[in-house]
Amino acid sequence: MSGVAESLLARASLSRLFEPSDSVGLALVSVVGPVDALRIIGGGIAAGSAVRRLLRDALDIPDSPRDPLKDGVSRWGPRLHDLAPERDLATLERLGGRLVTPDSEDWPEALDDLRLAAPLCLWVRGRKEIPALARTAAVVGSRDSTAYGGSVTAGIASGLAARGYSVVSGGAYGIDAQAHRAALASSHDEASPPTIAFLACGVDRYYPAGNEELLRTVAERGLLISEVPPGSSPTRWRFLQRNRLIAGVSAVTVVVEARWRSGALNTAHHAAALGRAVGAVPGSVHSANSAGCHRLLRDGSAVCVTDAADVVELAGGLGTEPWGDLEREGATPAREHDGLGIPDLLLLDGLPVHASTTVDKLSSVAGLSARDVISGLARLELAGLAVRAAGGWRRQKP
Amino acid sequence: MSGVAESLLARASLSRLFEPSDSVGLALVSVVGPVDALRIIGGGIAAGSAVRRLLRDALDIPDSPRDPLKDGVSRWGPRLHDLAPERDLATLERLGGRLVTPDSEDWPEALDDLRLAAPLCLWVRGRKEIPALARTAAVVGSRDSTAYGGSVTAGIASGLAARGYSVVSGGAYGIDAQAHRAALASSHDEASPPTIAFLACGVDRYYPAGNEELLRTVAERGLLISEVPPGSSPTRWRFLQRNRLIAGVSAVTVVVEARWRSGALNTAHHAAALGRAVGAVPGSVHSANSAGCHRLLRDGSAVCVTDAADVVELAGGLGTEPWGDLEREGATPAREHDGLGIPDLLLLDGLPVHASTTVDKLSSVAGLSARDVISGLARLELAGLAVRAAGGWRRQKP
Repeated sequence: MSGVAESLLARASLSRLFEPSDSVGLALVSVVGPVDALRIIGGGIAAGSAVRRLLRDALDIPDSPRDPLKDGVSRWGPRLHDLAPERDLATLERLGGRLVTPDSEDWPEALDDLRLAAPLCLWVRGRKEIPALARTAAVVGSRDSTAYGGSVTAGIASGLAARGYSVVSGGAYGIDAQAHRAALASSHDEASPPTIAFLACGVDRYYPAGNEELLRTVAERGLLISEVPPGSSPTRWRFLQRNRLIAGVSAVTVVVEARWRSGALNTAHHAAALGRAVGAVPGSVHSANSAGCHRLLRDGSAVCVTDAADVVELAGGLGTEPWGDLEREGATPAREHDGLGIPDLLLLDGLPVHASTTVDKLSSVAGLSARDVISGLARLELAGLAVRAAGGWRRQKP
Repeated sequence: MSGVAESLLARASLSRLFEPSDSVGLALVSVVGPVDALRIIGGGIAAGSAVRRLLRDALDIPDSPRDPLKDGVSRWGPRLHDLAPERDLATLERLGGRLVTPDSEDWPEALDDLRLAAPLCLWVRGRKEIPALARTAAVVGSRDSTAYGGSVTAGIASGLAARGYSVVSGGAYGIDAQAHRAALASSHDEASPPTIAFLACGVDRYYPAGNEELLRTVAERGLLISEVPPGSSPTRWRFLQRNRLIAGVSAVTVVVEARWRSGALNTAHHAAALGRAVGAVPGSVHSANSAGCHRLLRDGSAVCVTDAADVVELAGGLGTEPWGDLEREGATPAREHDGLGIPDLLLLDGLPVHASTTVDKLSSVAGLSARDVISGLARLELAGLAVRAAGGWRRQKP
C-alpha cells in the first residue's frame, strides 16, 4: 500500500475514533502523522516520552501533570473494534463519493485556519470539486424560518449562484433548505458552482428525513460533506462542530434569520473567529426570527446585507460587480436640484411658482446679493428651472 | 439698554439677516460680537483691516484675496429694511415663547460643538426648559412612513419619554409626527421631559398645515424651536440646516425609516460628524423605506437599535437600565443542556430515549472513556436528564 493510501485509510479510521474537534487526537496526528497515530491508539507501537512531550507542546500544556494521551486512548479505545475503514470507503464510493484529505487536489486549504480543530478528512458525496474560498458563501439561519426569511434566502442564494458562488449551508429545514433549493434552481449546467451541504451525520444518511429529496439532489448536483464517516448519527456536538466547517470553507457567512439564541449565531461566531466576513440580514424588530441577526449587527459582529450584491461585496468580490451600487443609485430618480450650489438652491427656493418676482425681492427673500441673484437666475434658466415672466422671474415647473 | 438685552436684540436681528449656517456672518459675530456685527452690516461703524484679518482667520482663509465681508454685506444688505426685532420678540412673547441665546440659562451648550455653524439664537415656544444633552434623543425618519415605521417609532418614543428622555424631531408627517404623538401620550405631568420639534420656518407657523393641531400641542406641552425668526418660510436650505440642530442637541439620533436618499440620513450624518451616537432601526429588505437605515448600518455610520432600551444604551444611559439585556435574555427559556460540559453533552446525546443502554455501549457511542461515562451519568442523573432503567441507563425526558 502506498504511503498516501495508507494515510488516507488511517484518516478514515481516526475520523471514526475521534469526535469532531478532539484536540488531543488531532494534536497527536499533527505530531506523528495519521498512520502512527492510529498505531499508537491501537497499541501497535508505544508513544515514547518525546512524543508525549511534543503532544503536550502541541496542546500548549507543556508542564501539565496530566497525560492527555492516556485520557485520549481511554476515550477512543471503546470504538477500536468498530473500525472498518475499507467498508466505509466502499460505502462512500457506492454513493458516488470520495474521501478528501489534506493530500487531495481540492482539499479546502481554508480549513487549515482552524489549526488544531481542522478536520482529519472530509467524506464527500458528489462529482464536483470543492471550490476555493474566494467563491464560496455560507447562507445560514433558523430552521423555523418565516416567509420573509425564505424569500430573502431565495433571493440571496440564487443571486450568489448566478454570480458563480457556491452556496454553503447545513441540511436543516428552513433557511438551509431554502438556500440549497434556490442555488440549485439557478444552476443550470455542469459548470455551475456546486451548492454544498455540510451534515452532522454520515453522508449516507438524510437528516432530517423531510429533506431527503433535497439532500439527494444536492448529492447529485452539488456536494454533501461530513467529517464523520458513513453510518454516524447526528448529535448535538456534531451539529455544533459542523458549523465551524461551514464557516471555515466560506469567504463570507450570512445569517438570514436567527433567534436571539440560535445555532446560526454559532456559525457566525466561528466565521468571525476565523477572520472571515460575516453578514446579517435585517428584518422587522417585531420578528423573533430576526432578533439574532439584529444582535449580530448591534454588537458589530456582522455587516448589514440586504441582497446578493451586498454579500458578494462582503466576500471581497466587489471588483466583479462594479455596477452593484450604481444600479441601486439609479433606482432613485435624480432630483431637479441635484448639482446646484448653495446660492442657487436658496434662489430656487425663493422663486414663486404662480407669480413673478423681481431681482430685488429675490435678493431679500433668498439672502443673496443682487449680483448673485442675476448670475444664479441665468444658471437656473439654462437648467430649465427659472423662466422670465411679466417683468420678472418665476419658477419653471420641471 | 443693558448689554445682555442689546446683545439679545442684535442676535434676533442677525438671525433674520443671515440664512442658517452663513459662515461669514457667524464668523463676524465670533470676532466682534453680535452688537458690533450688526453695526458693521448696517454701516454704523466700519470694519478695519484688523477685523477683516481676524475674520479671514476665523474662516480659515487667511491669505484669500477675497473680501468675505464685502460679499456678506451685499448678501445681507437687502434684508436690512425688514428688521424689526422688537416686533419679532413681541410676537414670540405673545405665543408664549422666548429667545434663547448663549447667555440663557438653558442654552444647549451641545450646540457649541457646531462651532462656526452654531445658531445665533433659538426662537423657542413652550414653557419648559431645553433639557441637557444627556437626556435627549432624536427620533427621525421618512415623511411617507409605513405602518411598521409608525409602530416602531411609537414604541421607541414612548419608551424614551417613559425613561425621562426628551424626544427631539422635526415637524413633518410620518416618523416625526408619530414620535411627538407617542412622546406626548407618555408624558403625563409637568415634570415629564418636553418633546421638542425643530422647525425650518418661524415658530409662529404650523408647517405642514396638516400637523397644525399636533404642533400646537407640542407648543403647549413641549417645545417648538427654530433658528429663524417668526414669519420666516420653510425653504429647502432651512430644512437641511434645521437637521444639524436636531442632531446637535441630541445625545443620540435614531433613524427609524428612511429611503436610500432621505433627509433623515442628512440628520444622521450631522450627528456622526458631531461625534454623537447614531442608531438605525432595521426593517424588511423589501421595504424602500428601510433602505436608508440599512445603508447606515452597512457603512458603519449607525448602530442597530430595535427598541427604546437600545436607544438609551446608545445614548450612554446604560447604567440607568441594568435590567435591559437581562429582560431580553429572560425571554428565551433556558435549555436542558445549558451548563453541561462537553463530555456530558456527548453523553446526553448518546443516551437513548426509548430503550436503555450500557456503560460500554455509551462509551463507544459517545466517544468517552468508561470512567467518564460513569461519572457523567451520575451528573446527568442529578440534573434529572438520565435515569437508571432495566440494567442500564436511558434518557429522562425533561
